[in-house]
Amino acid sequence: MPVISHRGAQMPPSPIRKLVPYAETAKKKGTKVYHLNIGQPDIETPKAILDAVRHTDMKVLEYSHSAGFESYRKKLVEYYARNGVNVNHNQIIVTTGGSEAILFGIMSCLDPGDEIIIPEPFYANYNGFSTSAGIKIVPIPSGIDDGFSLPPIEAFEKAITTRTKAIMICNPNNPTGYLYSREELEVLKEICLKHDLFLFSDEAYREFCYDGKKHISALSLEGLEQHAILMDTISKRYSACGGRIGAFVTHNQQVLDAAMKFAQARLSPPSFAQILGEAAVDLPADYFSEVHAEYNGRRDLLVSRLQAMEGVKCPMPGGAFYAMAELPVDDSEKFCQWLLESFSHNGATVMMAPAAGFYATPGKGKQEVRLAYVLNKEDINGAMDCLEAALKEYNKK
Amino acid sequence: MPVISHRGAQMPPSPIRKLVPYAETAKKKGTKVYHLNIGQPDIETPKAILDAVRHTDMKVLEYSHSAGFESYRKKLVEYYARNGVNVNHNQIIVTTGGSEAILFGIMSCLDPGDEIIIPEPFYANYNGFSTSAGIKIVPIPSGIDDGFSLPPIEAFEKAITTRTKAIMICNPNNPTGYLYSREELEVLKEICLKHDLFLFSDEAYREFCYDGKKHISALSLEGLEQHAILMDTISKRYSACGGRIGAFVTHNQQVLDAAMKFAQARLSPPSFAQILGEAAVDLPADYFSEVHAEYNGRRDLLVSRLQAMEGVKCPMPGGAFYAMAELPVDDSEKFCQWLLESFSHNGATVMMAPAAGFYATPGKGKQEVRLAYVLNKEDINGAMDCLEAALKEYNKK
Repeated sequence: MPVISHRGAQMPPSPIRKLVPYAETAKKKGTKVYHLNIGQPDIETPKAILDAVRHTDMKVLEYSHSAGFESYRKKLVEYYARNGVNVNHNQIIVTTGGSEAILFGIMSCLDPGDEIIIPEPFYANYNGFSTSAGIKIVPIPSGIDDGFSLPPIEAFEKAITTRTKAIMICNPNNPTGYLYSREELEVLKEICLKHDLFLFSDEAYREFCYDGKKHISALSLEGLEQHAILMDTISKRYSACGGRIGAFVTHNQQVLDAAMKFAQARLSPPSFAQILGEAAVDLPADYFSEVHAEYNGRRDLLVSRLQAMEGVKCPMPGGAFYAMAELPVDDSEKFCQWLLESFSHNGATVMMAPAAGFYATPGKGKQEVRLAYVLNKEDINGAMDCLEAALKEYNKK
Repeated sequence: MPVISHRGAQMPPSPIRKLVPYAETAKKKGTKVYHLNIGQPDIETPKAILDAVRHTDMKVLEYSHSAGFESYRKKLVEYYARNGVNVNHNQIIVTTGGSEAILFGIMSCLDPGDEIIIPEPFYANYNGFSTSAGIKIVPIPSGIDDGFSLPPIEAFEKAITTRTKAIMICNPNNPTGYLYSREELEVLKEICLKHDLFLFSDEAYREFCYDGKKHISALSLEGLEQHAILMDTISKRYSACGGRIGAFVTHNQQVLDAAMKFAQARLSPPSFAQILGEAAVDLPADYFSEVHAEYNGRRDLLVSRLQAMEGVKCPMPGGAFYAMAELPVDDSEKFCQWLLESFSHNGATVMMAPAAGFYATPGKGKQEVRLAYVLNKEDINGAMDCLEAALKEYNKK
């Protein structure tokens, strides 16, 4: 029998999926499972943008331009301008989800063996893309006691080697919900300019910022035009995860030229969801204010419930729709599995993502979980009732 | 300024796109351009499957399963069974176009530096995927005088090294239109079993076989279950190129497990076009017979017109919707550019793909072009009138 590749064997399985079989078993037993484990929003996709697809009069479902429909890219120029990012439509490559934008960035800027510095914890699929591309993630620690703020500049300086090509952030952050401040972004700019590094900025959650704070895009930092690359997606913004539409945006022409060749090799991004994305740019502003108010309320409820539990630590996240919490348990992976296998409260249990999978350093995050507040408030309350009761019972064992 | 990666710099540009600016200039001058250069069919996408998307009642455009909707994969089981391939729905991973299926195959089975043997000429984007993945394509020659049939077994044996992990075919072939016979597939099976190599089979054009010949899938070859991997797409089959839906299919569980991890890292294939693909499996059989008759007529017309031109060599292709022709010109790339830049006949000219881009061996295919018969017969006649007049004029220069 022929053997698979080393990279195929080494690809990390998704840390979130390990628990899926236990959740299925729980459901088969009739237990309701509150899914706080994944970032699949329950918010309805705006009807107007689904209708744009429903009303298409296309006769032939053709390839689009490899960089995406020109009409869509021109619309995106408006969208980015509203968000403080000035680009033209030739500086945008429409991608198949944010995932492909990240891959294009890695492939265009890093060679096998090159290094990228990422504050940990980080979005677990960065590991998969790194294994695919043969590059190395060098983590630097951010911690729950600092609310997961940017690590000090010294930590970056210490991590830089001759193979370092880029720093990557996710802003607002998945999994921590942390929103980077202008001061922190200026620190990153300084390091990138000093060491001539690319700054990859995953801004999937741009619209989700709370407490009156404003999101600042890496692409709006003056003087960083040749270094900053924006990886974007419409998935969370419009509750359109299944569309698989993202964007790769930069002012750096060399990087664009390289990324375009990867884009041409795969022909084009999906056409239907580009129609949806194009319509989305014209959604009225109150779409976001309603969604924003909803998530804001969920966040406040979730975090206040967590903070009220004995032994639970949960810094207030400034953005995205995630919170990280440290729990009074020996091992959050064991605890999360136990919740699904052996626990129920009022006929329900809760599913969370054990945080160890978001850390590259072994042993880190062992007591932490990530909670996605993608459920309505009643369900969040139900989930928190479960968690509170579970923590009491688990530690009695 | 930070520097891009070597792989980004080395990514081959699409050989077809080099001529695009010349075509645009010709159009601006008012010249009609017959596009025989790319495989974008003009056939309408069946209304029934576009309607399936139009009538969707989804509320949230969610991620699908990373392997694709289970309902779609179950439908695909029926489709493959009708085509002599017996698989279950867990042996199918729905991909983002055929492109991603090819990438999953390469990533799961080959490591950087590993080799894959492919008869040349071959689909030019295989070069891009190989550069992305850091693997090496080892071409073995097939030629116009043999109608581009499978090279002799000795050619494969000579090309195999300790780094060889797979043989790849495209059947029916893009760019040659060649349809491999059962005998040829048995030869490939023998080599793969003897040397324990994977057989990658790109079957994008399965439905397009002429002269009463039947397509035989690599996945239907008995005894090759652990070696054969099918890379598929709905793009050409249903004139649905913009949907970006393909499939990765194999009986090899280890390969499936590895490919699933690459699939999970990118979350899911596009949802809308999965709905379209699912509806397509239930299209009445006469859909294909109509499309088939149309392409058959176009092929006969195109090839007979080419064969009637002085100095032109064009073997009759058995499948797909491409023909390769050798022209009485010094350099087909120069000729194709000249056609767009300096020639018109009855206010029109023709765009073809110079074949050198489909060969890995430098200098090969210099007099050849690939013609895609994706236009109606009237346009094919118009294009052939242009080509005939152009050949006379070009050689007078």
